[in-house]
Amino acid sequence: MRWFLFGSFLYFFTGSVKAQSDSVFIRKIADEIFQHSTAYSNLHTLTKTIGPRLSGSSQTYTAEKWGQEALKQAGAERVYLQKAMIPHWVRGGRAQALLITGKNRQSLAVIALGNSVSTKSGGITAPMILIHDFDELERRKNEIKGKIVFYNHPFDVDFVWTFKAYEEAVPYRAYGASRAAKYGAVGALVRSMSSSTDNFPHTGAMIYNDSFPKIPILAVGLQDADKLAATASSEKDPELFISTNAHALPDTVGYNVIGEWKGSEFPDQFITVGGHLDSWDPAEGAQDDGAGCVHSIEVLRALKAIGYKPKHTIRIVLFTDEENGGRGASAYSSEAKLKNEKHIFALESDAGGFTPREFSFKGNESQVALFRKNLPLFAPYGVTSFIMNGAGADVDPLNDSTGALAAELIPDSQRYFDYHHAGNDVFENVNKRELELGAINMAALIYLVDKYGL
Amino acid sequence: MRWFLFGSFLYFFTGSVKAQSDSVFIRKIADEIFQHSTAYSNLHTLTKTIGPRLSGSSQTYTAEKWGQEALKQAGAERVYLQKAMIPHWVRGGRAQALLITGKNRQSLAVIALGNSVSTKSGGITAPMILIHDFDELERRKNEIKGKIVFYNHPFDVDFVWTFKAYEEAVPYRAYGASRAAKYGAVGALVRSMSSSTDNFPHTGAMIYNDSFPKIPILAVGLQDADKLAATASSEKDPELFISTNAHALPDTVGYNVIGEWKGSEFPDQFITVGGHLDSWDPAEGAQDDGAGCVHSIEVLRALKAIGYKPKHTIRIVLFTDEENGGRGASAYSSEAKLKNEKHIFALESDAGGFTPREFSFKGNESQVALFRKNLPLFAPYGVTSFIMNGAGADVDPLNDSTGALAAELIPDSQRYFDYHHAGNDVFENVNKRELELGAINMAALIYLVDKYGL
Repeated sequence: MRWFLFGSFLYFFTGSVKAQSDSVFIRKIADEIFQHSTAYSNLHTLTKTIGPRLSGSSQTYTAEKWGQEALKQAGAERVYLQKAMIPHWVRGGRAQALLITGKNRQSLAVIALGNSVSTKSGGITAPMILIHDFDELERRKNEIKGKIVFYNHPFDVDFVWTFKAYEEAVPYRAYGASRAAKYGAVGALVRSMSSSTDNFPHTGAMIYNDSFPKIPILAVGLQDADKLAATASSEKDPELFISTNAHALPDTVGYNVIGEWKGSEFPDQFITVGGHLDSWDPAEGAQDDGAGCVHSIEVLRALKAIGYKPKHTIRIVLFTDEENGGRGASAYSSEAKLKNEKHIFALESDAGGFTPREFSFKGNESQVALFRKNLPLFAPYGVTSFIMNGAGADVDPLNDSTGALAAELIPDSQRYFDYHHAGNDVFENVNKRELELGAINMAALIYLVDKYGL
Repeated sequence: MRWFLFGSFLYFFTGSVKAQSDSVFIRKIADEIFQHSTAYSNLHTLTKTIGPRLSGSSQTYTAEKWGQEALKQAGAERVYLQKAMIPHWVRGGRAQALLITGKNRQSLAVIALGNSVSTKSGGITAPMILIHDFDELERRKNEIKGKIVFYNHPFDVDFVWTFKAYEEAVPYRAYGASRAAKYGAVGALVRSMSSSTDNFPHTGAMIYNDSFPKIPILAVGLQDADKLAATASSEKDPELFISTNAHALPDTVGYNVIGEWKGSEFPDQFITVGGHLDSWDPAEGAQDDGAGCVHSIEVLRALKAIGYKPKHTIRIVLFTDEENGGRGASAYSSEAKLKNEKHIFALESDAGGFTPREFSFKGNESQVALFRKNLPLFAPYGVTSFIMNGAGADVDPLNDSTGALAAELIPDSQRYFDYHHAGNDVFENVNKRELELGAINMAALIYLVDKYGL
């Protein structure tokens, strides 16, 4: 694109004086974050000096220390920990898989799913059976025994909102092992939950049904999944070898890391802003959910830096164990209820550090309807709609337990599942300006909710 | 992000029966493109087998051949070339620059600007003078003689729409050399037009004012620009060495590559869709503007594939020489006027293959106002506003010459200037789904304009 084309470009904002002063204040938030944000440098530290943060791993604890320090640096008046018992599943080294056809052995890009049991020592070799969906599994239930089931249910690329494709495909990851074990399968492989163009395998939580034997389950990269599917239709009797040492240890202790900024008018009423500190382990948990943690810390830092005084008490919460059980969210919402705390609003960022497009809400629809008058204030920064489509795993429970309106930042979703739970979820795949725009929209939302209530 | 949160998510579209059938048709376009698009594979071929396509380079001609073939494959009924005389500037190998302080010599990441003259053989060494803007240049005009001017005017990060920052900074690239030469400078260096976090230098067109001596000018990467600025304030008498063999050859011949699809009702009325085939040379011209070429070809392919019959004649134009003079656009708009062709609409894609957000128009504002009723049809695919902010370098002249309404796809701009005219504008930095969404919105716009007129 050539340089001389762009004439002046102004966003017009017409509205009441109140809305104009809000628009000026939000512009101040944006300038502060674009010029002085620590979100990107915080993310660099979290991803590069701590790295993957699987529940129960040693990085769980180094990340908690980092979080406390980062919250203090951002200006939290009180930083404390909230205990939760968290799962402690260990990967036990890299899983392996081979496709065996006649005398040929081809290595596959695989990763064990979270909570998978191990194979027997030395691995398992068994015939492969290609299954496209659970209906086919039921129809062919008599062919499953003694085999390794390969679920090849692809992402539906037609959904513009990629989370919808994920929602549709993820039952194969979550329940595939037990549903195959019901019919005598000895192991399972699942096509990664992605529509990327690469071959990274994507891990994530799976759940056993205790009624059936626990069989090991791995995810396979998309290129290798296509290769397996082609082989299943072209070769006679292909076999799979799979091997993993994954196993669960007893639950251990983790902590939500909480930073508080006391409200001037309603100190006993809370606004929560958070992301989750844990991550899956193949990479650095940069988009999922380092971005959400540094977004939340930046909301505090930026509002303080420009001299805002909140009416309500603002809590930044770095939740523990979102990925493998949600124990941090349970602890936070349970304690809020137990203490009869008044929570008016909770905002989460857990869909990546991409350019923002929407906020999604869970709770009282009439509150959102009233709040919708503020939408034009967000448009210059990327958010162009408010939808009622749930909030997020870490704040939904607070809506359930306290009635607080819950919300989630919804960034553009096109790239999210390229990185989700995979070896390329690294700092380098987060764009600084996109990350900062997320924090700007979040801080603007918190400012408006705090100033005017709901 | 955990798997089980996302409930069903529907876009509601309420409107007339007409609008409903349009919404169904646009959904068909989207499904076709998400499932069968050749945009991404075309881009792979263009970037990886042809590569950089500087006006006058041998790749100008291999790209023209590729374009003709790709248009035929996409279903163009008639493919032809339109001649234009284009500049033929050659880089002459890599430029070099050193920062010299005392006995220290530090190599800098630099690239010659397009149209720069060479240094004398063996390069130039001269004192560096740091200049922040043209006002400062004027104030310090007596200090310039015999020096190398380093323009360190940064991108203004506060603009959400990054092209605005570009517009503000780019005069230093375009006019900096002659304005410094006016006061006796022997060379110039300019901070790259970007706010990225890396050190790639960004090239682009510069223009000499023939009233002053022509001095060589290079762009420097942002990290090195910051280093130079720090050195200028901490060290005594820093010098710069610069060297480039860049030079201009006589104009040569280039061609717009045009594919036509004849209209059934108004075959003599034209709708143009295009991008530019040339690119700067440090990388592959993937975002700028391979994306726009494959977007445009995909509009044709997809509409044909789903059985659409256009009323007007649709022309896909791969423009030559957008980057270094716009000679292809001049040829196209001049010939349209000369032949008295009736052009109703022209759409360009030249702001990258990122997720679409807007269309910008140039022309009759009342046409756009009437067309705005169609905006809800685009929202599910990312475009949420129509603005009057000019179209693009390749279609604006057609508005001038024929009165056709001109438009440009405006994708999200946060990452654009990370890659623009730099060594990282490669295929790998284009996301398949984001690219496809651009083509979907463009095809939807062309469909509506063709079906209902303007």
